[in-house]
Amino acid sequence: MNEALRDRFIAIVGEKNALVAEADVAPHLREWRGYWIGRTAAVLKPASTAEVSAILSLASETGTPIVPQGGNTGLVGGQIPDDTGRAIVLSTSRLDRIRDIDTDGNTLTVEAGAVLQTIQQAADEQDRLFPLSLGAQGSCQIGGNLSSNAGGTGALAYGVARDLCLGLEVVLPTGEVLDDLNRLKKNNTGYDLRDLFIGAEGTLGVITAAVLKLFPKPRGRAAAFVAVPSPEAALALFRAARAAAGPSLTAFELMARMGIAFTLRHVAGTRDPLAAPHDWYVLMEISSGRSEEDARVQLDALVEAGFEQGLVLDGTIAESEAQRLALWHLRESMSESQIPEGGSIKHDISVPVSSIPGFLEKADRAVLDIVPAARLCPFGHMGDGNLHYNVSQPEGWDRQRFLAMTGEVTAAVHAIVTEMDGSISAEHGVGQMKRDKLAEVKSSVALDLMRRIKTAFDPAGIMNPGKML
Amino acid sequence: MNEALRDRFIAIVGEKNALVAEADVAPHLREWRGYWIGRTAAVLKPASTAEVSAILSLASETGTPIVPQGGNTGLVGGQIPDDTGRAIVLSTSRLDRIRDIDTDGNTLTVEAGAVLQTIQQAADEQDRLFPLSLGAQGSCQIGGNLSSNAGGTGALAYGVARDLCLGLEVVLPTGEVLDDLNRLKKNNTGYDLRDLFIGAEGTLGVITAAVLKLFPKPRGRAAAFVAVPSPEAALALFRAARAAAGPSLTAFELMARMGIAFTLRHVAGTRDPLAAPHDWYVLMEISSGRSEEDARVQLDALVEAGFEQGLVLDGTIAESEAQRLALWHLRESMSESQIPEGGSIKHDISVPVSSIPGFLEKADRAVLDIVPAARLCPFGHMGDGNLHYNVSQPEGWDRQRFLAMTGEVTAAVHAIVTEMDGSISAEHGVGQMKRDKLAEVKSSVALDLMRRIKTAFDPAGIMNPGKML
Repeated sequence: MNEALRDRFIAIVGEKNALVAEADVAPHLREWRGYWIGRTAAVLKPASTAEVSAILSLASETGTPIVPQGGNTGLVGGQIPDDTGRAIVLSTSRLDRIRDIDTDGNTLTVEAGAVLQTIQQAADEQDRLFPLSLGAQGSCQIGGNLSSNAGGTGALAYGVARDLCLGLEVVLPTGEVLDDLNRLKKNNTGYDLRDLFIGAEGTLGVITAAVLKLFPKPRGRAAAFVAVPSPEAALALFRAARAAAGPSLTAFELMARMGIAFTLRHVAGTRDPLAAPHDWYVLMEISSGRSEEDARVQLDALVEAGFEQGLVLDGTIAESEAQRLALWHLRESMSESQIPEGGSIKHDISVPVSSIPGFLEKADRAVLDIVPAARLCPFGHMGDGNLHYNVSQPEGWDRQRFLAMTGEVTAAVHAIVTEMDGSISAEHGVGQMKRDKLAEVKSSVALDLMRRIKTAFDPAGIMNPGKML
Repeated sequence: MNEALRDRFIAIVGEKNALVAEADVAPHLREWRGYWIGRTAAVLKPASTAEVSAILSLASETGTPIVPQGGNTGLVGGQIPDDTGRAIVLSTSRLDRIRDIDTDGNTLTVEAGAVLQTIQQAADEQDRLFPLSLGAQGSCQIGGNLSSNAGGTGALAYGVARDLCLGLEVVLPTGEVLDDLNRLKKNNTGYDLRDLFIGAEGTLGVITAAVLKLFPKPRGRAAAFVAVPSPEAALALFRAARAAAGPSLTAFELMARMGIAFTLRHVAGTRDPLAAPHDWYVLMEISSGRSEEDARVQLDALVEAGFEQGLVLDGTIAESEAQRLALWHLRESMSESQIPEGGSIKHDISVPVSSIPGFLEKADRAVLDIVPAARLCPFGHMGDGNLHYNVSQPEGWDRQRFLAMTGEVTAAVHAIVTEMDGSISAEHGVGQMKRDKLAEVKSSVALDLMRRIKTAFDPAGIMNPGKML
């Protein structure tokens, strides 16, 4: 990019809100695990929708690629520019105001750069719950959560990001502002533009603000960490728990022993809640609108019935909020604890819930056929049919030797997913990582409609090029 | 349409599934209240997705307008062709198979022509709930419910039709079939095409099948019909009920006395559940995942607290399922009972819940300024901020004299809605009725995006022309 043009971009946000020095832009150009690294002409930090509009307007006029970026916690490279250095990174971090909270309508209106945890806390202060919850919540931003249609552990009872949003403010590639900050639960006046931008990974426009749904805050929560003999037993336990607790069952997470072993080995302060190791674990949680005691009584009954039916081998129920958080800490350390174990080939898949045991059996066999000593670390949101099917390198192997097999391993896993009518990207999105795989899993009819939408909204192709499509 | 072309269309479905005689087509050409009457070249009843595809393919080739029609229960004329007689009416009534029920994944896959009540019953037989519920459920079809994004009384706890659908099969204007019968809760592989077709009123393609979400069936339900002193009191009661019951509060309906009086007068077998008349009523319902008794205990506590705080003046709690249904019958007779009272000017509005009392005060004043003896019959889904703000003609007036004032009355009501950030079509859609009003309530940016989508999907403009856009 020539200096004159760059200066025009910088002038929009002011020099102190534009990063150009190598050390300053570096954190915005590197995916946090180091999988993707890009280059940029400048990182701009607009503080208002008007500034975002001015940036896109100039980008449109000059054909400059724009890469929107939130907390840079994405897992598929959607937030990282390519290596040409032509793109402007548009960071939403200064657009972080909570504009409004309506406790009658149960809505919270917020700008794209607000950190998820800040939003959770703001809701909590008004005795409300914003249920989107995921590992990166301390740094991810709501604009990125919506652009990638984030899932997480709260989806079982409350749905994914899409289900938690009523309205959006979006700056289009031309710089025009779509003000659709709808706060209404029912509003049937035209095509659903909101849901097009949600999950579009910044390829159709920049989300600058959103109206989120709030929920009554549970009066009590109880969590149990139980060992189960097999994924089949976990499925039976899930069926029983959902039948008994209905929407009060707010989490049902499956974990293989390998991930727990890694966590106990590498994450300070963790300990095995059970006396002996087991192959499979479930973390389940009950939320009650009535009381702590009520949640606890329901959970006790579920675990006890599980024992009686041989679905639970051992288990512990958190006796305090600190213990409950410690159980969750085990679950949420699962990604981090894989890092020191070397290379990891990761999959974010979903299948119909009833197919989870069959998927695990087939996928394990297929992976071990390719890499007999691979260490299998599947874990995730079993109640949503969504697993992070991660495979760590054999002990003693060279990291690169293992990662060189990614294509083969992933092809085998994805083939099983596709055969089971599953998804190869349940909650992380497409980004750079899965763009080329899209043609394998989407019909040509669907891809053609997506391309028509992209062309209709962004004819010059300046919005996050090279991502998704 | 020339006979040769008509014969080509008829050949696709076979003569006995094509209606052409005036008496046969008449029921498909008249909106059920008689507000819109159209003409057609033929009504076709395809029995498979392949036949729908062949019809649209031929329509595309010959530029023939297609009007998709379900149960013909829509309230905005979206299902009725214009009066040129050029259009083919594509009735989905023979596409009525339930293809699959998955009680682990809690999904039901069904064709577009299945009647809503049939789907509710199929779910019920599997000990599941399909919560979409509305007055026309005995004849409306799920394809129409999705195309119009229906709301109804279950939306408070379970959401509108859009929230209850995971995947779609859609025939595009070209005849191509989009097979997106996704059964997964989490699937982030591309733009959200599903939500574009939901609520598009058949202007982008024909929905031929859908995957619906099922829910655990409540173990018990309890309903109360209470008199409240004012809409403000109803709002305070709603706040208290939602705070106490959370997602167990599954209905909160507001009704003015006028509608109840009409119902008692015209609907056989109804009686006033309370000893004396009151200005305002609330029908509220609690569903429990535990037991009938549990639902009853919660509801008793709410009504009692309402009495103590002066929010409830009188009330009755259903003592049996028959009584519960009788209370609901009062609410659901509200539309029908207005018919014998003469002309009615109808509005389907939503505003933020906290604005409901203010809206009623302003709208009543505005309407009575125009027609001082008008009889106000507002009722509806207060918990969703959605009211059917209906106005019946003054006693003794000529029907036409009153209906001639529709434009003036509606403009006044809609102006108040718009000022309150509300919607002029909360759950009925746009159709023919509100097409010209769309420009008043949508921004030019939103309308422009809608037109770009329409052009990208249906460049020849054959899909339900004259509706919505």
